[in-house]
Amino acid sequence: MRDAQDIIDTAHHMADAARAAILPFFRTDLAADNKWQTGFDPVTEADRAAERAMRDVLARRRPDDAILGEEYGATPGTSGLTWILDPIDGTRAFLCGAASWGVLIGVSDGQDIIYGLIDQPYTRERFEGGLGQARLLSDAGERPLAVRDAPLSRATLLTTYPEVGTHDEGAAFRRVAAQVRLTRYGLDCYAYGLLSLGQVDLVIEAGLQSYDIAGPLAVVRAAGGIVTDWHGRPAQGGGQVIAAATPALHSAALALLNGGAA
Amino acid sequence: MRDAQDIIDTAHHMADAARAAILPFFRTDLAADNKWQTGFDPVTEADRAAERAMRDVLARRRPDDAILGEEYGATPGTSGLTWILDPIDGTRAFLCGAASWGVLIGVSDGQDIIYGLIDQPYTRERFEGGLGQARLLSDAGERPLAVRDAPLSRATLLTTYPEVGTHDEGAAFRRVAAQVRLTRYGLDCYAYGLLSLGQVDLVIEAGLQSYDIAGPLAVVRAAGGIVTDWHGRPAQGGGQVIAAATPALHSAALALLNGGAA
Repeated sequence: MRDAQDIIDTAHHMADAARAAILPFFRTDLAADNKWQTGFDPVTEADRAAERAMRDVLARRRPDDAILGEEYGATPGTSGLTWILDPIDGTRAFLCGAASWGVLIGVSDGQDIIYGLIDQPYTRERFEGGLGQARLLSDAGERPLAVRDAPLSRATLLTTYPEVGTHDEGAAFRRVAAQVRLTRYGLDCYAYGLLSLGQVDLVIEAGLQSYDIAGPLAVVRAAGGIVTDWHGRPAQGGGQVIAAATPALHSAALALLNGGAA
Repeated sequence: MRDAQDIIDTAHHMADAARAAILPFFRTDLAADNKWQTGFDPVTEADRAAERAMRDVLARRRPDDAILGEEYGATPGTSGLTWILDPIDGTRAFLCGAASWGVLIGVSDGQDIIYGLIDQPYTRERFEGGLGQARLLSDAGERPLAVRDAPLSRATLLTTYPEVGTHDEGAAFRRVAAQVRLTRYGLDCYAYGLLSLGQVDLVIEAGLQSYDIAGPLAVVRAAGGIVTDWHGRPAQGGGQVIAAATPALHSAALALLNGGAA
């Protein structure tokens, strides 16, 4: 794509702007001044401030692109590109002061997600995938993203909530969990970053929105992983999502999710 | 205590030494060279290296103190003080690349835990409590630790594993979870840090060892919180542990854990 570098540069400017907008609200002292008794909601304030900050960057640098944002909805464009924004994915983690939430940015060309970022402002970690990039940027420098290759019996599975969606979705999840070596909870979008770093093997979630998965999808795919829905179809619409390090793990997990043997 | 400053300085030297020993093993690329097929276990290696590093500091600076370490057991002393060490609490988080694990250091005077640290080497956060200290040290500077005051209906509850110990322990936990606003999983020792920062209100765990709770106990108490077992007795022996921000929350949660109404 002719303007790949401009897309990349714009995304980093947006993530920088989101960090600056959000961090003043993270780990705020709500007890002081009884702020919460007045209805002050730091994560909502931060969410909105961050999306506005990212939209300001786009208005300045790429006014012809469309935007789909969690907080401010859809803004049409003429370029054929859409920026898909979740200013804070993992609002409950944010409320706990845990650093598994992130700023998610994805870019769609109308067919597919071509680029994405998962940014963790507090730890200053930024996972980037697509348009030739596959890397983790942090204060420690740059590290290439690449999935690992483990069999199901040695795999680590991550998700956010133990119940994983509906009753049936939870049961399907537990069929996979029963076959892996280790299952961990509470990681939010950071889970996709750990998969892309080759630290874990599967992320399975349900009930996602499109803006929850656009950025992570691009990152995982750039690292060599696979992201689909629970039936192997495109995942960018959200809903039931599985991210797997390898085709073998993906097949085995899909079979279990859909009731078969691994 | 006459040598409070020396204890504090020694603990920070130990935590620094543990960081240096552990970080080379964190987020290692096990796929490279098929390391895991040779039985290489990074968390065990890191655990042992960190405890050795901490014991070296004690041998040099405070050879008369006793030591109780997760990896190398008990070393007798003559001073009346015992250093209680868990070089990596949260080994499963460590294996996933998540930063909720920590180095735990507690100091007992034979009656009680008088001082403790929870150190997160990757995020460079160090929670310190006791001997006049109650603070979070990080690259962003120093922040005082202080619990917040929320009613049970607005409380956030943290634990590590959704099953929380045995069947009965899990059922007791869920009686509390049903009454709070938000329950989150997977935080390991970092949960006690977040409680001490006033970000969450309750941490409830079962099946702990004494070295799992000595450091966190001192930190939470220094921040104004309460740490006991599920019957309100001293917690430093491990087992069933509850940490609460306030006496009211502590009482309400104990009643629920033991089958009563909040």
